[in-house]
Amino acid sequence: MTFLSYEELRRKLLTLLHEKNYREIALLIRDTNEVDIAEFLGECDEKERALLFRMLPKDMAAEVFANLDAEDVETLIHDYSDKEVAELVDGLYNDDLADLMEELPASVARRVLAATDPERRKLVNKLLAYPEDSAGAMMTTEFVHLRQKMTVIEALTRLRKVSTRTEMIYTCFVTSESRILEGVITVRELLQARDESTLAEIMETNVLSVTTQADKEQVARMFDRYDLLAIPVVDSENRLVGIVTVDDAVDVLIEESTEDVTIMAAVRPTEKPYLETTVWDNCKRRVVWLLLLMFSGIINGSILERFEHAFVALPILVTFMPMVTDTGGNAGSQSSTLLIRGIALGEIRLRNLGQVLLKELGIGLSVGSILALANGLRVYLMNGHDLLLAATVSAALLAVVVAANLIGGMLPLIAKSLKLDPAIMASPLITTIVDALGLVLYFEIASALMPGLRL
Amino acid sequence: MTFLSYEELRRKLLTLLHEKNYREIALLIRDTNEVDIAEFLGECDEKERALLFRMLPKDMAAEVFANLDAEDVETLIHDYSDKEVAELVDGLYNDDLADLMEELPASVARRVLAATDPERRKLVNKLLAYPEDSAGAMMTTEFVHLRQKMTVIEALTRLRKVSTRTEMIYTCFVTSESRILEGVITVRELLQARDESTLAEIMETNVLSVTTQADKEQVARMFDRYDLLAIPVVDSENRLVGIVTVDDAVDVLIEESTEDVTIMAAVRPTEKPYLETTVWDNCKRRVVWLLLLMFSGIINGSILERFEHAFVALPILVTFMPMVTDTGGNAGSQSSTLLIRGIALGEIRLRNLGQVLLKELGIGLSVGSILALANGLRVYLMNGHDLLLAATVSAALLAVVVAANLIGGMLPLIAKSLKLDPAIMASPLITTIVDALGLVLYFEIASALMPGLRL
Repeated sequence: MTFLSYEELRRKLLTLLHEKNYREIALLIRDTNEVDIAEFLGECDEKERALLFRMLPKDMAAEVFANLDAEDVETLIHDYSDKEVAELVDGLYNDDLADLMEELPASVARRVLAATDPERRKLVNKLLAYPEDSAGAMMTTEFVHLRQKMTVIEALTRLRKVSTRTEMIYTCFVTSESRILEGVITVRELLQARDESTLAEIMETNVLSVTTQADKEQVARMFDRYDLLAIPVVDSENRLVGIVTVDDAVDVLIEESTEDVTIMAAVRPTEKPYLETTVWDNCKRRVVWLLLLMFSGIINGSILERFEHAFVALPILVTFMPMVTDTGGNAGSQSSTLLIRGIALGEIRLRNLGQVLLKELGIGLSVGSILALANGLRVYLMNGHDLLLAATVSAALLAVVVAANLIGGMLPLIAKSLKLDPAIMASPLITTIVDALGLVLYFEIASALMPGLRL
Repeated sequence: MTFLSYEELRRKLLTLLHEKNYREIALLIRDTNEVDIAEFLGECDEKERALLFRMLPKDMAAEVFANLDAEDVETLIHDYSDKEVAELVDGLYNDDLADLMEELPASVARRVLAATDPERRKLVNKLLAYPEDSAGAMMTTEFVHLRQKMTVIEALTRLRKVSTRTEMIYTCFVTSESRILEGVITVRELLQARDESTLAEIMETNVLSVTTQADKEQVARMFDRYDLLAIPVVDSENRLVGIVTVDDAVDVLIEESTEDVTIMAAVRPTEKPYLETTVWDNCKRRVVWLLLLMFSGIINGSILERFEHAFVALPILVTFMPMVTDTGGNAGSQSSTLLIRGIALGEIRLRNLGQVLLKELGIGLSVGSILALANGLRVYLMNGHDLLLAATVSAALLAVVVAANLIGGMLPLIAKSLKLDPAIMASPLITTIVDALGLVLYFEIASALMPGLRL
């Protein structure tokens, strides 16, 4: 049995569904990854979804259910009895159940919560109470905790017992009677140790942990930095209350990258995939920044009004205007993008501001000189060997590029120091700022070099 | 002992170094994560680096060494004997050693390779022969393989034996005599199974695997999609040759996001962090696209030349020009950015083109109408109640925004269908294209609505 890509699987299933060949479908999905089945169910209509879901073996159904979108869950459980809902929910880890609760409409969420046993309901409600972007909201409460006095054999025996109801068993945490986090030990270390060693002897006591209030992006970055499979989450008294696992960290890293890129394009981020968003939703997320940027563009208009005499006297100046401002905008966006990403990755910190500005000055001068030279030559050759015009445009270009690089290098760090998201200092805003600056520089330089243009 | 953030640790170590308090330093670093020590060594000068490295306990030294940058490794081993180099290299996994080889200058790499035993040298050379962006270059050759006829107890015994020299032990692979991949089993499943079961009975036979030639970004995305800890890598005969582990997948996901963002800013990507790049290196990576975009700007110049009569007759038209083209550029960048990211995440596929265009048309019309209305009102009120002027600018704005959204929605998918990187269709290129289009639309609409402007 070879592993099918989702596109291959989808084509096969659509054909089989069309042929109503349910025997083959049952065989095929039994050999399919639950994530792919869940995606396919999302593409089906309501009736097919219910039908296919009923065909799943019980152990797969729980896993597929855990991977369904909230909307699909909603239509699916519509026809289910409370007992059936309870069975489905039983297969979910607490953190997945909490995530689902958050996405379901209130009435459906209430029904699902009513179907879970009271003990668990309390735990899930606790998870739901943590702020959305915190480690608390990201963690699960199903983990292995061991005691210092246990031997390796005892620890392994306990692992065997709890491993079905535990999301991550490979990193185990050692706690005191009062649940204070005391150490960490991996299954690898347990396997390597002598059977009769106690955990107190072999555990690592300098435990990397985060609090329930920690920012989820920072938690996710720790997984990347330290190559972890799980991080313990503690409350303010250092009591272990949950763990964050690497799969959730990967999700957060990808989500946060998407969020950054979206903000950098002047769009308010959403967690929904593009194809699932409506036109109106997109409109609301995009129009605010466009309006703001458009109205900042008024400044450009008034700058141009100030220099109207110049371009009426020498209309060819207008011809080069977009080139100068666009190039400046592009250069500034290059700098700001590299800075924003470097800050997000923790590679560039506030203390590096001086270093950044010096580097951007150097880059602006070298890049700007190359562009000015190339452009000067072009203008000189193509515009009647007008050396003064070529020099004017090129000088403006160099000045704009240097200024743009400095602005692009500076603004993300300034945003960071003001506790703003550096990602707002990306292309659209930088372009608008550099445009205004570029116009002033361009016409000032033109007026300075071309005496005829002065008022 | 509480866990220090890197910034706290750095401050403490710098103070202690300044005070030459080596006793405290030795105590502190013994309780510090190896990743943080490696970063700090990277900031030290050569002498301090050598001194601090010698102070590390042996088991930590190997781990710190694995996390050092190639340049730091180079200066560090400069004074080391071949025997010492051999010891350090011995602590590296094969994939990390191969990565290091790639980054070291040839002469140093030769010296390091000479220090490794011949068996291992052969393996590392094999890893080095895979294409840079392939699963082969990403995998390690240290993994657990088991046989179908083994019992659970035998498998666990084997795990205990090999676990020190194996990067990932929690996902084990079952192979035939001729190394054909037959199944997969996790340590969790081993712990849950009865001692006397054979692996043949309990292993999963539908194994998700990739070939050595698979693209590393796609491999990394599989970790995210299927929540995996390891993926087996097979050759063309389905023989198991290595595994990719989740920590390397996380690195690739972050690298690829950075690469995308960098390309989207019209910068040639690099693997080096911003602060480690030189001015000249940055200049080369940035100037090519700027030159290309600048020269495409010539088109804008010639468009403006064509409409010179219009803006000489009505200079106020120039005043609104940057606002119209900038807004179009921003709107187009919004669309293209969301598309590029959606394609990268596998959420948007070629077959969705129609859906995307319809959605972008709707968004363009709604966003464009709001902007046109707001702008029309502004122009009317602030420019002497000139209704015709307000209508002209607003009509142009609406047309440009709709066109920009369609272009931004289309180009990334077209790039994808041409096997180009969709990320090149980002803000800078879209802005340049939309600028040209915007100028034409603006002046054509102005000429159509204002009879006095016609030639």
